[in-house]
Amino acid sequence: MKVATHQLRCTECGARIAGNAVNSIFRCPICNGLYDVIYPWSAIPGEESSPSASNLPNASALRWLWQERRTSTMPVDQSGVWRFRDLLPIVDDANVVTLREGNTPLYDLPRAAKSIGLDWILAKHQGMNPTGSFKDTGMTAALSVAKERGFEWVACASTGNTSAAMAAYAARAGMRSIVFIPEGKIAWGKLSQSMDYGALTIQLKTDFDGCVNVLTDLVTRFPIMLLNSVNPYRLEGQKTPAFELVEQLEWQVPEHIIVPGGNLANGSALAKGFAEMHHLGLISRIPKVSIIQAQGANPLYLSLQENGGEELIPVKANTRATAIRIGNPASWRKALRALRTTGGWCEEVTEQEIALAKAQIGSEGIGCEPASAVTLAGLKKLVAQGKIGREERVVLVLTGHTLKDSNYTIDYHRGELFTPEEDAEISAADQALHSALRKPPLVLDPDPDTVFRMLESQMKLVHA
Amino acid sequence: MKVATHQLRCTECGARIAGNAVNSIFRCPICNGLYDVIYPWSAIPGEESSPSASNLPNASALRWLWQERRTSTMPVDQSGVWRFRDLLPIVDDANVVTLREGNTPLYDLPRAAKSIGLDWILAKHQGMNPTGSFKDTGMTAALSVAKERGFEWVACASTGNTSAAMAAYAARAGMRSIVFIPEGKIAWGKLSQSMDYGALTIQLKTDFDGCVNVLTDLVTRFPIMLLNSVNPYRLEGQKTPAFELVEQLEWQVPEHIIVPGGNLANGSALAKGFAEMHHLGLISRIPKVSIIQAQGANPLYLSLQENGGEELIPVKANTRATAIRIGNPASWRKALRALRTTGGWCEEVTEQEIALAKAQIGSEGIGCEPASAVTLAGLKKLVAQGKIGREERVVLVLTGHTLKDSNYTIDYHRGELFTPEEDAEISAADQALHSALRKPPLVLDPDPDTVFRMLESQMKLVHA
Repeated sequence: MKVATHQLRCTECGARIAGNAVNSIFRCPICNGLYDVIYPWSAIPGEESSPSASNLPNASALRWLWQERRTSTMPVDQSGVWRFRDLLPIVDDANVVTLREGNTPLYDLPRAAKSIGLDWILAKHQGMNPTGSFKDTGMTAALSVAKERGFEWVACASTGNTSAAMAAYAARAGMRSIVFIPEGKIAWGKLSQSMDYGALTIQLKTDFDGCVNVLTDLVTRFPIMLLNSVNPYRLEGQKTPAFELVEQLEWQVPEHIIVPGGNLANGSALAKGFAEMHHLGLISRIPKVSIIQAQGANPLYLSLQENGGEELIPVKANTRATAIRIGNPASWRKALRALRTTGGWCEEVTEQEIALAKAQIGSEGIGCEPASAVTLAGLKKLVAQGKIGREERVVLVLTGHTLKDSNYTIDYHRGELFTPEEDAEISAADQALHSALRKPPLVLDPDPDTVFRMLESQMKLVHA
Repeated sequence: MKVATHQLRCTECGARIAGNAVNSIFRCPICNGLYDVIYPWSAIPGEESSPSASNLPNASALRWLWQERRTSTMPVDQSGVWRFRDLLPIVDDANVVTLREGNTPLYDLPRAAKSIGLDWILAKHQGMNPTGSFKDTGMTAALSVAKERGFEWVACASTGNTSAAMAAYAARAGMRSIVFIPEGKIAWGKLSQSMDYGALTIQLKTDFDGCVNVLTDLVTRFPIMLLNSVNPYRLEGQKTPAFELVEQLEWQVPEHIIVPGGNLANGSALAKGFAEMHHLGLISRIPKVSIIQAQGANPLYLSLQENGGEELIPVKANTRATAIRIGNPASWRKALRALRTTGGWCEEVTEQEIALAKAQIGSEGIGCEPASAVTLAGLKKLVAQGKIGREERVVLVLTGHTLKDSNYTIDYHRGELFTPEEDAEISAADQALHSALRKPPLVLDPDPDTVFRMLESQMKLVHA
């Protein structure tokens, strides 16, 4: 396959530049806006687009090609991102850096669906990616671009999933990576992966914004590629789960996609994927993409309530769903666009609602990190508000693996996640669900009769 | 597909019974031996086997069928275990309990290969399974059998990967699961998954053997299926990565497979897979399967040294590679048979060798838990002993994800894994490797110049 040209288009002022002409901070020099990657066949919102028919990839041919590649043993075909490379022609095949990301399972959640009163709920589990989060689909794209452009170093500010993914793909490419974090705010568990994959970890005696400032200086003065989510190539990778999803559904389109909202790039990436498929005739309509935030980290929700999304109201983020603990998200305008173009909603959910939803997902044999569980918690609200009906098909995007945050799970089941005051805020119905789901370890004598009596009581409980 | 009959055959005395006639402890009532699952087309070691040609599955047809299923959207086809169900016809398709296990990546380790002096090393990463370990491939098989036979409860004694996998698949099937662990020896992180997936966790005031005794009593008196690795159906699932591996290599057979040795069921399961493929003409020869143990948990290695494997010498296991911290492995005779029939070796490696190997694998962008890293550490020994040559193709089986044991990784990079005395035992060459791989976090002022000077020194180091 020959590499097609692509451009970067400012999402604010519409200015276009060649992909390799972008500055080191990935922002428009005219208006400071973020970029979208566009292709000769792209439909540009608000512009009369008339690409010649010969430029438009053929939908049937693409479907056939993508299916054929599933039987290939080549790494670039086995990747669930690059299998769709015809719609993200940003690098030459030879420069692809892959860990066989994507190809994530689509699970049904029959018990959750029943308890909410829906016919079915599906979960697209992006936590099943190589480093345990959805970030891998974006990092394979951005690191491949970094490799093609000759970078030897990459960097980001993050203490979590982003740094883990960056470190892994950089190591795979034989490149070096730097992670900046504020001193004293280290979640060692989340950082263990960056260290394992050989990243250089630098604690700065400042806060997160201070880290971003140093990082910005750094990429301006050194040949280091910035890999925070302002990098638009990450979103090209993160749009591909939309392709994979509808392919798994035999090209049927669900009514609703629900994603967690942290830095807010993921929902817009998926919306871009759906819009491109629709434009090319691969699907007949676009699902509503809804974004759910934790109440303690709800800048988008708050801004929509207060000023209709005119401007962002940053918040001091506080939630145990650490992957979405972001108070000043970089991609809020892109997320807003995704909500508006698809017709989805933004909701917020409490810590208790997140914990309950996570336990419900776990009880179906599918673990996820707390941030992922906001999707189910938010779905309950949207159903209660009458926005989603019984027969409508809903896909939750689970973004991280349960192993990303073992402590949260342990605290929950030992009853140590909430204070008695916080527990008192939980409704009676939810209290009953918590009681059924919570599994504190029992301590028993090794006397078989003691064990058997306890189990008989449990079995009756279940059989009753 | 119609369910073919299968039998269980005692690996000690050769007695055969129907699959559904097995007792609740999965041991031969005549000699207490463990069972193999056998099929009408199986070759029985030491027996003149003459299955009629019509019973033998056709190799070309199987290859074609298995490839075709890769394009299917049915869960039973998307599973990397059940895609090969023709060679494990133990349940009806309708009873399959799957989390889309298998389909794990095969990575190359170019830097490790170079440093050891081999042309290439591949790693089959079973830690990329849904719950993060190779146990999933076995649990999907055993839980499906439990479901088909009408069990509502399953149980195992384990604090680690086995209980996590059992709990997930039981939850998926709508069944209840019980995990027995010795009181006071809880690794909370490892148990978090069992709790997340809704298992009932019972700490008994006894040791591990005491737990097994209670469990044995329990499954004898209650309708609960025993899911420890004596359950032969688990091994039917665990043989399928052998099929997947050679398919990924376009039906070429590597010279060597290297697996970690804990309870010793995994190596024998893979050897069974290779033997069956060879018998059916799917591959032209069988790779040598070698088993590596931690020095602190080396009963098989010790027994081979002391008595040529005549009888097992149990040890009091002690290693930080917790997944293989087993002193009295149930499946040691099966493992011995795998070594002898394939021509592989058994080696032991030190804690320091394990830590170095894990860091080397991590530095290629591929994390694993410590137990997985014994494979690379053992490979170094086999190469040094002249048992494996430069051109021979080696596949390491990585059994668990790096997220299974974050604390180990953190302790390593912060220099807290070993005492100064233990550090002093490391050779100068390995010390240099450790220094290059260890990534302790740095603490710096947020003054850009300080950061830049440090990075310039790092870059020179790398570019030199």
